[in-house]
Amino acid sequence: MEREILLYNTLSRRKEIFKPVTPGMVGIYVCGPTVYGDAHLGHARPGVTYDVLVRMFRYMGYKVRYVRNITDVGHLEHDADEGEDKIAKKAKLESLEPMEVAQEYTLRYQEAMRKLNTCPPSIEPRASGHIIEQIALVQKIFDAGFAYESNGSVYFDVRAFHEKHNYGELSGRVLDDMISNTRELDGQSDKRSPLDFALWKKAAPEHIMKWPSPWSEGFPGWHLECSAMSAKYLGEEFDIHGGGMDLLFPHHECELAQNKASRGKGGVRYWMHNNMITIEGKKMGKSYGNFITLEELFTGKHNILVQPYSPMTIRFFILQAHYRSTLDFSNDALQAAEKGLKRIMQAAKDVKSLQVKGGSEDNKEIRKIYDDVFTAICDDINTPIALSHLFDAVRIINQVKDGQSAINANDKALLDELFLKFIPDVLGLVDESAGNGSEELVGGLVEMILEVRKVAKSNKDFATSDLIRDKLKALGVQIKDTKDGVEWTL
Amino acid sequence: MEREILLYNTLSRRKEIFKPVTPGMVGIYVCGPTVYGDAHLGHARPGVTYDVLVRMFRYMGYKVRYVRNITDVGHLEHDADEGEDKIAKKAKLESLEPMEVAQEYTLRYQEAMRKLNTCPPSIEPRASGHIIEQIALVQKIFDAGFAYESNGSVYFDVRAFHEKHNYGELSGRVLDDMISNTRELDGQSDKRSPLDFALWKKAAPEHIMKWPSPWSEGFPGWHLECSAMSAKYLGEEFDIHGGGMDLLFPHHECELAQNKASRGKGGVRYWMHNNMITIEGKKMGKSYGNFITLEELFTGKHNILVQPYSPMTIRFFILQAHYRSTLDFSNDALQAAEKGLKRIMQAAKDVKSLQVKGGSEDNKEIRKIYDDVFTAICDDINTPIALSHLFDAVRIINQVKDGQSAINANDKALLDELFLKFIPDVLGLVDESAGNGSEELVGGLVEMILEVRKVAKSNKDFATSDLIRDKLKALGVQIKDTKDGVEWTL
Repeated sequence: MEREILLYNTLSRRKEIFKPVTPGMVGIYVCGPTVYGDAHLGHARPGVTYDVLVRMFRYMGYKVRYVRNITDVGHLEHDADEGEDKIAKKAKLESLEPMEVAQEYTLRYQEAMRKLNTCPPSIEPRASGHIIEQIALVQKIFDAGFAYESNGSVYFDVRAFHEKHNYGELSGRVLDDMISNTRELDGQSDKRSPLDFALWKKAAPEHIMKWPSPWSEGFPGWHLECSAMSAKYLGEEFDIHGGGMDLLFPHHECELAQNKASRGKGGVRYWMHNNMITIEGKKMGKSYGNFITLEELFTGKHNILVQPYSPMTIRFFILQAHYRSTLDFSNDALQAAEKGLKRIMQAAKDVKSLQVKGGSEDNKEIRKIYDDVFTAICDDINTPIALSHLFDAVRIINQVKDGQSAINANDKALLDELFLKFIPDVLGLVDESAGNGSEELVGGLVEMILEVRKVAKSNKDFATSDLIRDKLKALGVQIKDTKDGVEWTL
Repeated sequence: MEREILLYNTLSRRKEIFKPVTPGMVGIYVCGPTVYGDAHLGHARPGVTYDVLVRMFRYMGYKVRYVRNITDVGHLEHDADEGEDKIAKKAKLESLEPMEVAQEYTLRYQEAMRKLNTCPPSIEPRASGHIIEQIALVQKIFDAGFAYESNGSVYFDVRAFHEKHNYGELSGRVLDDMISNTRELDGQSDKRSPLDFALWKKAAPEHIMKWPSPWSEGFPGWHLECSAMSAKYLGEEFDIHGGGMDLLFPHHECELAQNKASRGKGGVRYWMHNNMITIEGKKMGKSYGNFITLEELFTGKHNILVQPYSPMTIRFFILQAHYRSTLDFSNDALQAAEKGLKRIMQAAKDVKSLQVKGGSEDNKEIRKIYDDVFTAICDDINTPIALSHLFDAVRIINQVKDGQSAINANDKALLDELFLKFIPDVLGLVDESAGNGSEELVGGLVEMILEVRKVAKSNKDFATSDLIRDKLKALGVQIKDTKDGVEWTL
């Protein structure tokens, strides 16, 4: 905890020295997934970014409470063809049950995050499980005079709020500009102003998820859950709120407004936002045909992908850019990441068996790399800079391995910490071949045996070559002679 | 769905033919874990039992909605040494947060259940996430006249209920006997009768988890969540309610009473109860020193265990007894299960490569085994009988493999269904060596290469034998010539 940690605060628009609310502890809230669809490339970036943030704090000795919500209050509706009567008569098991959908996608999301080697959050609160807290929050905002009821729904009164506070301070938008850019209400809306947003919505008959409230049978507004759950689990003032840049407005702006309206203060010391992933320069979207789920990435099953990319390759790819820069996805970039990851992982293996030469002086370059890596990670988690320093270390490791250079025990200890602790514990990069390392091994062994078979054949020793073929078959290795050589499959 | 399925119904105390509420669909509710402790051997049995039930229905073509709750409304309290003032002043992050504890044990439980190859439930509702539904249920019971309020708590009035219904009908207990066996209230209690149970409890100041309600800031009674959540997700009348025998009284008896008191009917067609696991004849308990967590079982780290037991061994062990019989855990029994599992898994491998002899008559024994296996599983999921028939099939498979017997294509199709579909899909038994099956493969390949090296050496072809040694070393395979041959390690 001796090192100073700098974080870019969206609210102040500059890097600030991190000072925790409670010494030695950090409370972090990150906006999690809406579980009515598959986890995609866009989920991987905040997943990995805030995972490194959490890991860095833990590495520095902080106790971290990391809260990431699950938005399961979905807007699922009954089939429009069915009348209310018909729906009411339907057996429970025949009806669409939103929680069944939510459970399936929650499990898939968690599985993808596990594959990316992200730590599970300390608490993973569901919006549907905190309706009481959300209703209480609406009531507080209402009582403070910053909300109004209209036909059973409750709206946040942006204009009233802006008179006392500053709506737009987080996103940097100016209220008057926003108003002039908004179309007039069509007269059909329950809202007084187009900028007002729902705190509680009265449910239409076809809406499936709804709960009783003082205003109507309905459901909470989208922005509400994060204000309610962050305060519940981290307190009314906590350290860090993270999320994707796409959530800055309106979601986080509204969250901040809700906090101020209900408790008189914003309640978040540092607002952090990760930038977006583009795909070959374009925004990702179903309409662009470039929407890639994480499962598709890991298996290579998408027409954009020329090969599968392992979870660690994706993780490395994300870490190669600073979280506040955009990151462009392409096969070339991913293949480059795959190679970079391989070099780092090989170096981590090599470090273990590096020979130490007693009596030699400390290697100043290693000491500098060590310091630079930690300086980079503490400088607004600058992972690309940390990685570039680690690649300098790889070069030194290779020199030592090749006998062109020597290191002493101190140097070795620094390299050990960087490659055997910092890389897995903070960057979260682990050797994927460890589990199926046998894949490489099997490949090597089969190739060797086929080499022997080739020699036997060229010596007209068909007894041996046939024996090898049969033994391989018995082991489940199928071989096929082609004009280009031998193909084999398991 | 043509086969008749028999289930033992605790309520009627006999086997009944299963008839679903909604044709082609089954709703199953099972009492899940309290997530304030590690998953132990006692969790494995209901986990596996109801998993096979769900798998059987799915195999028969039913659409299953399987709900298993997570009890996270814990009775965690603040440290008694701390006064209320001190607690209020404590920073949020310094305070014990029950949800952090619940999250950790939920993840561990889910991980253990994944290892046991149980399907995740379709919905996994949390008690803390359904407080509104539970308060509404208390209100209904209250309005129906079967509950009373006392000092902010609400109790179920067992005597009033028993006048109209039958308290004790599920567990077979007689109310008057229960009353005469109960000590008088000490005058300190809020309850009118010692048999009454809490629907809502006013929280003491040190109690951490509490919510507002019409009666007090408090928390729901233990039995309430299952009545509320089963009705919410499966309907007011659903098919099957399962749980351990230890939950029969008071938990399920009270649940049934709550259902009848609130909606006039029990709402559950079939009540199923799995029996308990004993350890070397004794009840499992922390005070007996024989409390074994699933993680300890899988790793062998408990002084009772002479070795680790794989998740599939545990699963097979559980399936070897009928779910309504007690099951005694011992190292001998587990080692026997390990052997039995191995035989079944080997047979499943052998089935794939069995040669079919055209033109021969159908093997009547195989047909009978096939029928018997399905009859057994449909007879109150009698897994031990199904397994014993499968072992008869193993004998036949070995005979065919050894050429002592022949089968035709029809016989093969039946064996395929039993070993390649029924065993993995219904019994949920899968080959654990599949993941590291490469281990076997690597072993086979290395042995083959060493054989070639031996030949080369005996031919004094040292160039080849040295090349093989070097190539193996490069692949990470160390070899050592000994007087007994060659030893190798990875």
